[in-house]
Amino acid sequence: MTKSAAGPAPGATFSSFTPPARILMGPGPSDVHARVLDATARPTIGHLDPAFVAMMDELKELLRYAFQTANEVTFPVSGPGSVGMETCFVNLVEPGDTVVVCRNGVFGARMLENVRRCGGVPVVVDDDWGTPVSVDKVEAALREHPEASLVAFVQAETSTGAHTDPAPLVALAHAHDCLAIVDTVTAVGGVPVRVDEWEIDAVYSGTQKCLSCPPGLSPVSFNQRAVDRVKARTAPCQSWFMDLGLQLGYWSSGARTYHHTAPVNALYGLHEALLMLHEEGLEAAWERHRRNHAALAAGLGELGLALLVAEEYRLPQLNMVVVPDGVDEAAVRRHLLGESGIEIGTGLGALAGKVWRVGLMGYASREENVTACLEALGSALAAQGWKG
Amino acid sequence: MTKSAAGPAPGATFSSFTPPARILMGPGPSDVHARVLDATARPTIGHLDPAFVAMMDELKELLRYAFQTANEVTFPVSGPGSVGMETCFVNLVEPGDTVVVCRNGVFGARMLENVRRCGGVPVVVDDDWGTPVSVDKVEAALREHPEASLVAFVQAETSTGAHTDPAPLVALAHAHDCLAIVDTVTAVGGVPVRVDEWEIDAVYSGTQKCLSCPPGLSPVSFNQRAVDRVKARTAPCQSWFMDLGLQLGYWSSGARTYHHTAPVNALYGLHEALLMLHEEGLEAAWERHRRNHAALAAGLGELGLALLVAEEYRLPQLNMVVVPDGVDEAAVRRHLLGESGIEIGTGLGALAGKVWRVGLMGYASREENVTACLEALGSALAAQGWKG
Repeated sequence: MTKSAAGPAPGATFSSFTPPARILMGPGPSDVHARVLDATARPTIGHLDPAFVAMMDELKELLRYAFQTANEVTFPVSGPGSVGMETCFVNLVEPGDTVVVCRNGVFGARMLENVRRCGGVPVVVDDDWGTPVSVDKVEAALREHPEASLVAFVQAETSTGAHTDPAPLVALAHAHDCLAIVDTVTAVGGVPVRVDEWEIDAVYSGTQKCLSCPPGLSPVSFNQRAVDRVKARTAPCQSWFMDLGLQLGYWSSGARTYHHTAPVNALYGLHEALLMLHEEGLEAAWERHRRNHAALAAGLGELGLALLVAEEYRLPQLNMVVVPDGVDEAAVRRHLLGESGIEIGTGLGALAGKVWRVGLMGYASREENVTACLEALGSALAAQGWKG
Repeated sequence: MTKSAAGPAPGATFSSFTPPARILMGPGPSDVHARVLDATARPTIGHLDPAFVAMMDELKELLRYAFQTANEVTFPVSGPGSVGMETCFVNLVEPGDTVVVCRNGVFGARMLENVRRCGGVPVVVDDDWGTPVSVDKVEAALREHPEASLVAFVQAETSTGAHTDPAPLVALAHAHDCLAIVDTVTAVGGVPVRVDEWEIDAVYSGTQKCLSCPPGLSPVSFNQRAVDRVKARTAPCQSWFMDLGLQLGYWSSGARTYHHTAPVNALYGLHEALLMLHEEGLEAAWERHRRNHAALAAGLGELGLALLVAEEYRLPQLNMVVVPDGVDEAAVRRHLLGESGIEIGTGLGALAGKVWRVGLMGYASREENVTACLEALGSALAAQGWKG
C-alpha cells in the first residue's frame, strides 16, 4: 500500500463554517426556529446526569403527545429516520417471516430493502408514484398470504407527496393477524398521526420535517403488541445498536443501563421543538399546514403550474409541482437558491427531473414563505421565457 | 388493548431546558468549547446544498488529519460510536468468518456481540481489566486459527483506562493474513493514533471524548484493503443504514447519491472541533493530555489514592482511581457533582463500585480542572472521615 501524506496539504488553511442564508422549502430539512438552535447550543452535560434524565422523561412525554399515544415505549433513536426505520424492521422481522410491503415511492422501496436484509419474505404491493397505497390490493395480498405477520407502509411519501390514510390499512392488518409498521417521517406535526386511535403497532418518524429540528434523530413508538412480538423472538436481533431489548434498558424509566452515549445537544433541540409544538397545539399546527398549502396551491394555479397528486391525497407539507415541458428543472432550482436563497427539492427516482418538491414543513410553513416562493418561481420561469 | 390518555396529563406544564453548570470529567462526554457549541447553533441548511457539500469535504480532510491517514474512505457515521463500531463489523464480517476478538473491558465485549450478530465465529482473547491486550495471546490464537480473517481490539479501553499499542497487533494480524479493526473512540486527540503508519485497516472513533464535541457522530476510516474486502463480499451487508457501499455513494466526492439526511448541525460542530484540533496541532494536544494527567496522578498520590492501571499502560485522558476500602463510592461522586458541579464516572461491569473514572479529555484537559477535581476529591473524602 502506497503511503501519501495524511491530512491537509501543507499550507492548507481552514476556517469556521458560516452557512449561507437559506429558506428551506425542500423535502427536509426544514427551517429551524432560533429557539431550537439556541437550545442545541446549551452546554453539554452527562447523559446519565440526573438533570439530563429528567429532561429526557419530559421529552418522551412530549413525544407521546406528538404521536398521540400513551405507549410506554416511545423514545428518540439516536440516528436519522433511516435508523428508526431499520430499528422497526430488525426487531419485528425474523428470518422467514412474510411481510407485506407497500411500495408507492422511494421509502416503501427502502422498507422492502430492510425486509430482505432481515431475512424476511416480502410480498410487494405496488402503487403508482403520487397515489396512495391501495387498500384493496393490500387486502388481496393478505388473502393470498395468510402466513403474513406484518404490513408496512408509508403515511406521507416524501418522494411523491401522496398521503395514505393509515386507519383502514392498520385495521386490515389486524384483521389478518398482522402487526402494522407505519413510516410517519414527514407526517408527524404536519397532518394527523393518531397512533393509539388507529392502533399502529410500530411507528417511526424524523426530526427534520414538520418538527423543524436539525436532522439526526428518529422518534419511534411501539405498542404492547409490538413489544410482545419482540420479546417472543426466537432469533436474536441482528443489530446490536438497534436491539430494542438493549435500547429499552437505557430509555425506560427506573434503572438506566448504559447502552450508548445519547446525543445530548441534539436532544436539547428536540425537547425545545416538541415544546413549541405543544405550545401551538397539534390541531393548530395541522390547520396552519393546511392553510399555507391552500395558499401555495392557489398561487401555483395562477402561475399555470400543476400539482402531481390528486387533490384529496395531497400532503399539505410537501407539494409536488409538475415541471412544465420545455422548462429546465435544475435551472429553476439554481435560480431560486441563487436569487432568493430558497431551497426546493428535485424529484427522486422515477420522478427525477419531472417535479419540484416544495416543502411547507413545520416552521417553514409560513405565509411569507408561500409569497416569497411564488414570486421566485414566477421570476425563474419568466427568466426561461415560459409563459404558463 | 386499553387506551389511556395520549401525551401529557391535563395541566402538565413544560419549559425550556436549562442544563446545570457542570465540569465534565467522566468517561465522556467531555466539556465542549463555546466555539463548537456556537457552531452547532448556526442555521440549518440543506444536506445537498453546495455550501454544505464544500464544508463536508473540508471536514473529511480534517478527519484525515485527526486519524493521520490519507484514506479516501474517511467520514463521520451519522450515529454514536456504537454505530461506527457496528458499521465496521457488518461490512467486514461475513457469516462463518473467524474473528479474533480481544476482550479486556466492556468495549471488547461489545465487539464480540457484534461478531456474533453478524454470524461470525469469534475466537476470544481475554485479558484482565486494566491491562492491555497481550500480543502473545493474540499470536497464539492466530496460530491456532489459521482460518481467521480479522483481528479486533480496543486501543483505549474506556471501561478500564488501559492503553494497548496498536502497532504490534496490527502487524501480527497482517502477518496472519487478517485485517485489523481498531476502536479508537477514546484515543483520537488524546494519544497518538497513526492509521497509515500502523496500517490499521478499519477504525472508528467518537466525538464526545478527546475531540470535545457533543456526542452523536462516529468518525470512521477504511483503507484500500478493507474496501476491497467489502467489495468482495458474497453475502449482502445485513444492515441497510450501515452498508458501506451505500454510505460511500453519499459521502464520497463527485456525484452524491441521496442516502439519508445528514445531521447537519452536529456536523457543523464536528467541523469546528476538528478545526480547533488542527489549530492546536495533534502533537501539542497529546502533550497537553500527558501534562495534565501527570499533574492529576501526582495530586492523587498526595491524597493517598492509587491508580488501577500500571504506569506504562495508563491513558492520560482517562484515569482509573481505586476507591479506598471503607469509602462510599457513589457518595463521593454525588459530593463532587453537588458541591463543585464536577462529573466523574463510576466503574462499568466488573469495576462497578471499585473505581472512579476521572476523565481529562479534550477541552476538559486543563490545569484548572485538575486543581478543582483534586480539591473536590479531598473534600469529599474528608467528609467521609477518610484520612488516606
